[in-house]
Amino acid sequence: MTQPAITDRDIILTGDRTTGQLHLGHYVGSLRQRVQLQHVCRQYLLLADAQALTDNMGNYVKVRDNVLQVALDYLAAGIDPDKSVIFIQSLVPELAELASYYLNLVTVARLERNPTIKDEIKLRGFERDIPAGFLTYPAAQAADITAFKATVVPVGADQIPMIEQTNEIVRRFNASVSREILVEARAVVPEQGGRLPGIDGKAKMSKSLGNALPLSSSPDDIRQAVRMMYTDPNHLRVSDPGQVEGNVVFTYLDVFDTDVDRVAEFKAHYQRGGLGDTVIKKHLEEILQELLAPIRARRETYAKDPGAVMDMLKKGTAKAREAAAATLSDVKSAMGLNYF
Amino acid sequence: MTQPAITDRDIILTGDRTTGQLHLGHYVGSLRQRVQLQHVCRQYLLLADAQALTDNMGNYVKVRDNVLQVALDYLAAGIDPDKSVIFIQSLVPELAELASYYLNLVTVARLERNPTIKDEIKLRGFERDIPAGFLTYPAAQAADITAFKATVVPVGADQIPMIEQTNEIVRRFNASVSREILVEARAVVPEQGGRLPGIDGKAKMSKSLGNALPLSSSPDDIRQAVRMMYTDPNHLRVSDPGQVEGNVVFTYLDVFDTDVDRVAEFKAHYQRGGLGDTVIKKHLEEILQELLAPIRARRETYAKDPGAVMDMLKKGTAKAREAAAATLSDVKSAMGLNYF
Repeated sequence: MTQPAITDRDIILTGDRTTGQLHLGHYVGSLRQRVQLQHVCRQYLLLADAQALTDNMGNYVKVRDNVLQVALDYLAAGIDPDKSVIFIQSLVPELAELASYYLNLVTVARLERNPTIKDEIKLRGFERDIPAGFLTYPAAQAADITAFKATVVPVGADQIPMIEQTNEIVRRFNASVSREILVEARAVVPEQGGRLPGIDGKAKMSKSLGNALPLSSSPDDIRQAVRMMYTDPNHLRVSDPGQVEGNVVFTYLDVFDTDVDRVAEFKAHYQRGGLGDTVIKKHLEEILQELLAPIRARRETYAKDPGAVMDMLKKGTAKAREAAAATLSDVKSAMGLNYF
Repeated sequence: MTQPAITDRDIILTGDRTTGQLHLGHYVGSLRQRVQLQHVCRQYLLLADAQALTDNMGNYVKVRDNVLQVALDYLAAGIDPDKSVIFIQSLVPELAELASYYLNLVTVARLERNPTIKDEIKLRGFERDIPAGFLTYPAAQAADITAFKATVVPVGADQIPMIEQTNEIVRRFNASVSREILVEARAVVPEQGGRLPGIDGKAKMSKSLGNALPLSSSPDDIRQAVRMMYTDPNHLRVSDPGQVEGNVVFTYLDVFDTDVDRVAEFKAHYQRGGLGDTVIKKHLEEILQELLAPIRARRETYAKDPGAVMDMLKKGTAKAREAAAATLSDVKSAMGLNYF
C-alpha cells in the first residue's frame, strides 16, 4: 500500500498504554519511526494511563507506575522532549470532555460492529461483561486524535477501523454544526518489519506472552533471549540444510542487520547446510547488543533522576492541554456551549 | 413508602434537562419541594445541557437557549441562588472526567438491563440506533450525583433504577480502591401529587405532548388552558351526575386548592349532579391565576436583566466546580493518578 508522505504540515498523535515497559517489538513497530518523525513534524506522544484503566481498574498501581517506565523507554529510544510533546492522558481532562460529546455521535450498534473492538473483546474474554468504557473506547480515541488536530496516526493494520471510526465522528460533528471544526486523520501503517515476532516465533512480541525483550534488558538478558530464540527445530546437525522461513534469528537479522548482502549469504549457507545456529545467533546477539547498549545507557541515566523526567512530563502535559483546550473550546463554541 | 426525612446533613442533587421551559408539572413534581428544601440542606440544581445533548445533538441551539429559560423558571418559582447552587453542567468538566472513569465500572450488559434506559429507548424509538451517550448516561448521572457527594436525589418512581446504578458504581469504585471515597445516595420519590397530568388528562404533562401549562403562561393562556381542560365527557348537562375520577379539574383542585373541605363539597355536588363544569373551572382558574401571578411577575423581572441571571449562573457554576473538583481529586488520587 502506497501511503502519502508525512510532511511538516502533518501532526502526529500516537502513544502507548502504560501497562508495562516497552520492548524491542515497540522499538521496531513504532519507537524508531517516532525518533525520525519528530524531526519532520509536530508529534504528540500519549502516555495512555486513562485508557489502560478501561480494562485495568483493579490494577491501577501498575498503570500509574508504568507512566514513568514508558517515559524512560521513550527517552532511551531517542525521543527528544523538545521535539515531541510527551504527555499524561489523565492530566488532560479536555480529552474526557470531548469524548463525552463524541459519545452522542456514535451508536451502540456501530461500536459493536467495530472489528478492532470485536477482536479485543474476544482476546480479553469479556463475552457479555464488557466494561462500557471498553466498548466506547473509540469515542475516547477520537478525542485523543482530534484534540490535537492530528492528521496522522501510526497504527498496526488491525487498528485501521479505529481511525475510520474517528473520521466518522469528525464528519458527523462537522455536519451537525455545519462547520469544519474537526480534522480527519489518516492511519499510517508501517511497511515491512512493522511487527516483530516474539523470540519464541509467535506472531507478536508481548510482555504477557513472556516472549519479549524489554528495552531495559541487560547484556545477559539479551544473550539468554537470543540463546532461547526459535530457529528450525529440524536443523539438528550443523551440516543439515536449515529452514530460513519462520526462523526467528533470520527474521531478526532481516530487521536489524543493515548489511543486506551478508544476511543473504548467511541465509544461502544455512539453507544448503553447514551453518550452525550458534554462529548466526552469535552474530545476531552482537547486533542486538550494539543496538540496545546506548538505549540501556540512556535509560539508566534518565532513571537516576525520575524527578527530572516527571518534570519533563509536566511540561509536555501543559503543552498538550493548551492544544486540547483550544480544540475543546472550538467544539463547545460551535455547539453554542459558550455562555460567558 | 415511608422515606427517611431529609436533614441538614443531607446534600441534594437534582436538576432539569434544558430542552424547554418548565411548566406546572415541574412545579408540582419538583420545583415547589426545592423551594422548601433549600432551607433544609445544601442543594445543587443542575442545568443539564450536556445531558440534553445526548439525544439533541442536532438541536443544540434549543438546548443552549433553554439554559437561561430554565434558570428564569427556577428563580420565578422561588429558588434562591444564595441558598441553592444553580449551575450549568457543560461548564463543570469534572463531571465528564468522573464519568469517563465510571464507564470502566459498569458493563454494557448491565446498562442494557437498566429498566429506565430500556423504557427511554423504547419511548424515543431508538431501536438499535441508540447513541452511545444515551446508553452510557447512567455513568454520567452517577458522576453528577457523586461529584457533589449528594445523599438525596429526588426522582420519579421510574428513575429509581438509575440511583441503584449510581450506588453500584459507588460501591464498585470504593471496593476497587479499598477506601470510602464516594458516597451512596438515596432516591426520594415525592408522595401524593408528584406527577401532574396534562390538561388533556394524559398521565404526563409534557411540552412535546402539547398539554402543558408553562410557568410563564399569561393570564389568558391560563384561562384558555382551563377552558380546554378534560373533565367528564358524559357530563353533558349541569343537572347530570358527573365523574370525579380522571377529571382533570378535580385532580388539579386536589393538588392546588388548599381548602380540602371545599374541594370535598365540590366533588359531592358534582357527583350528585347540579354543578356545572363552568363553575368548577372558574374556581380552578382563580386558584391557578393566583398561584402563577407572582411566579410570572418574578420571571418577567428577572427576564429583563438576562446578564444578571447569567452572572448568577456563573457564580453557581464556580461553586459547583469547586465541589466537583474536590471529589475528582479524591477519586484520581485514590487511583494513583496524582503524579505531580
